[in-house]
Amino acid sequence: MVTTLLDSTLREGELFRVLKLSTKLELVERLADAGLKRVEITVDYPPRTTREDVEPLVKKCNSLGVEAVLHGRAIRQDLEAAAKYDAAGVGLYIALTEIHRTHKLHGISYQEGLERLMDAVKTAREMGFRYVRATVEDASRFYLEGQLPPLVDAVNSVRKAGATLVSVPDTAGLLSPQKTREFITFLREKTDAPLAAHFHNDYGMASANTVEAVLAGADEAHVTVMGVGDRNGIADLYEVVAVLEDIHGIDLGVDRSKLNSLYSYFSKVAGLRLPWRHPLSEEARTIRAGVHQSMAVEKPEGYMPEKKLRHDVENPVFEIGVYSSHRLIAHLTGLPSTDPRARSATEALARKAREKKGRLSISDIKEVLKNELGIEVDNNRLSRFFGGEKVYILAKLNPRFDPGKIYDTLVSWDDVEMVDEVYGDVDLVVVGRMKLVGQNLVERFKDIFADAIDDLKVLVAD
Amino acid sequence: MVTTLLDSTLREGELFRVLKLSTKLELVERLADAGLKRVEITVDYPPRTTREDVEPLVKKCNSLGVEAVLHGRAIRQDLEAAAKYDAAGVGLYIALTEIHRTHKLHGISYQEGLERLMDAVKTAREMGFRYVRATVEDASRFYLEGQLPPLVDAVNSVRKAGATLVSVPDTAGLLSPQKTREFITFLREKTDAPLAAHFHNDYGMASANTVEAVLAGADEAHVTVMGVGDRNGIADLYEVVAVLEDIHGIDLGVDRSKLNSLYSYFSKVAGLRLPWRHPLSEEARTIRAGVHQSMAVEKPEGYMPEKKLRHDVENPVFEIGVYSSHRLIAHLTGLPSTDPRARSATEALARKAREKKGRLSISDIKEVLKNELGIEVDNNRLSRFFGGEKVYILAKLNPRFDPGKIYDTLVSWDDVEMVDEVYGDVDLVVVGRMKLVGQNLVERFKDIFADAIDDLKVLVAD
Repeated sequence: MVTTLLDSTLREGELFRVLKLSTKLELVERLADAGLKRVEITVDYPPRTTREDVEPLVKKCNSLGVEAVLHGRAIRQDLEAAAKYDAAGVGLYIALTEIHRTHKLHGISYQEGLERLMDAVKTAREMGFRYVRATVEDASRFYLEGQLPPLVDAVNSVRKAGATLVSVPDTAGLLSPQKTREFITFLREKTDAPLAAHFHNDYGMASANTVEAVLAGADEAHVTVMGVGDRNGIADLYEVVAVLEDIHGIDLGVDRSKLNSLYSYFSKVAGLRLPWRHPLSEEARTIRAGVHQSMAVEKPEGYMPEKKLRHDVENPVFEIGVYSSHRLIAHLTGLPSTDPRARSATEALARKAREKKGRLSISDIKEVLKNELGIEVDNNRLSRFFGGEKVYILAKLNPRFDPGKIYDTLVSWDDVEMVDEVYGDVDLVVVGRMKLVGQNLVERFKDIFADAIDDLKVLVAD
Repeated sequence: MVTTLLDSTLREGELFRVLKLSTKLELVERLADAGLKRVEITVDYPPRTTREDVEPLVKKCNSLGVEAVLHGRAIRQDLEAAAKYDAAGVGLYIALTEIHRTHKLHGISYQEGLERLMDAVKTAREMGFRYVRATVEDASRFYLEGQLPPLVDAVNSVRKAGATLVSVPDTAGLLSPQKTREFITFLREKTDAPLAAHFHNDYGMASANTVEAVLAGADEAHVTVMGVGDRNGIADLYEVVAVLEDIHGIDLGVDRSKLNSLYSYFSKVAGLRLPWRHPLSEEARTIRAGVHQSMAVEKPEGYMPEKKLRHDVENPVFEIGVYSSHRLIAHLTGLPSTDPRARSATEALARKAREKKGRLSISDIKEVLKNELGIEVDNNRLSRFFGGEKVYILAKLNPRFDPGKIYDTLVSWDDVEMVDEVYGDVDLVVVGRMKLVGQNLVERFKDIFADAIDDLKVLVAD
């Protein structure tokens, strides 16, 4: 049995920022294009979300052959809302652990909660949904606290009631990879229900736990773009897909070549940065240690996974600091690596880097190479080795122009990392990278928004 | 056997930014204060690092009862450099896999490489180091490629030569938690060498892999503050400690109460943000989903690990958006949660949040509550529920003042998230949070640096 991914970016992501309908439709298209076959959407729940939010998304999913799963509570109101649309399925949840029943659910009994979930499942089946997922919220707590009979009973009961899938989430982020393996293996042995895995990231283990759950036989795995989700998120689409594919040979059907662009787009529309710790970040492909650079300049797979280089990363980039390699400088300048000048230029760069607290800007590098070797390295060559410089653009806009429209354009630019609409002396803060070749971000910004800009300040950080 | 943590923040962190000696000394003190007993430092390697960098750090470690481990290559030059100091130990490395020998080590043979490492170990022992770690760089590749005899031979040979610990790093970040477990278990069975675990984060699995390695019996585990390290880092100190302690009951001797402040300090001096995905981030304790809020406002352990709340997080904070809970509003305003006004105020806030694309600022919230309920909520009360607003401060400094000195003060402030020295129309960009109670960041900045500020712009993002 192959595990199916369910992408929950639209549901979990909406907790962070209300996305415009056009953005949500674009996300569905990009998810489908990346090979996702199942997408989760919050059911309409006025005034929070309305029919105008839900219906076009379900239609878009259907037109793209993606299963739309409407997510709601195990109550009649949400089921009736879901039934209005031609969605493939529903996800219905209730918590059955004591802490949730006591403090959230007004002290209902376990049996009462379970019956609500079973009833909702039966009703959903009667409504004709072909996918009916019952979520036993906070399920991992039963396991950790050794309350095995109510856990097994809940999973078996909702399965018997007609659930096509039973989700056993780690709602409060309580599990480690080892505990996850034991948890899913236990349920696999004690029940015959198809299981869905949903892991929160409170200890930073969400993606690793999801990988373990798939290896232990979970039938559905929940992920989001960048791992967005309540608190510090749930499992990350890329991490789950890449680890299972590259290390365990399990293909979840995702087209890796689409993920960089999908992540970059979502990061900006959600106003959430791709963390430097993330495998697809600029940092992840930046090599700083000299001993690593000396090899990576010719053979990057000595220091980065070869399959990751093939699928996700065009090429590593380098940062020249105190510990840089003379082989990198040789490559950059075209000198043979045995040429003593490469070594002395590297030492001059190291001294300069010490002065500058570690990070040399592109212009620092050019200046040292010119002074030390008399060599002018052109930007085309530099751009093969280095990322662009970090730049802040502060724009005061003419009141006739809508910052929101400019924002929409900016988030589609690959060299923009972050856009903030702000109040005060300026209207927009744009953070991005100045590429070395072609029109850079600042030039393009000035060019395209010339009419709208009343005042512009550019700050370059190195 | 209890696993010992080795903190490598000073070595790996220095790849990102050259830290001043006073900063490095403060880091050693903070690490010792947090209970770390072993710290790794790059050996002097002029002009990259010099005696002036290394000696005071070793002395500081010795005075605090922390073992200083000097890290260098398995060559005479680095050993002789290490021997100049009264350090507890050395870590010596060479790679033995074919890809590294061919492309980095000028085509030396496996045997030749292994002998270099054995010789270095013997010499280090003769020099009197009581801790001598031999690092078989890129060791995980042998395992993944099924080259088991050279792996086992290397570990056993360096152990026999006198290594007190053999490090088998996942240099190129190739392993998953499952493969890690198999890898360490295999070595445990085939060798009697004490093993050190060092995992890179190329697939986002470094911390999870390190947890698995400790559970499988590794004797030393390498971590850094925030997981800093080449590319997107190595295992994260907090994640490894908290998962092993809270979930597996293994106490690595770290005082959790020191970690928030240590992380905040290091983040600023290294110029690296704590990612929102991190378990100690502001995001990790921000609850956005209404169903989560409705419980967390009274019983946060329903949605966050109880041990994490006890050790690391004073209290959760909330964000009011489209999906917020009326129970949160009831708590905030002091209304009974059954009062219908709490519900209608929540719906008014949801409508406002839709308009504002999801995030309401504190002033938005105050305004809606005032208009809707006629209730003025004071800042003391608000500050129990919400974090401060994000603020950018742009400062133009009088040329008589050194931005570096101001920088040093700013990084010690808890409400500052990032400081960038920039070039252009201003000199410093400060990003931080405006707390609701007491003197806020902007007021303090203006107050303390009044003489230095030529011009100041304040931008509030919501």
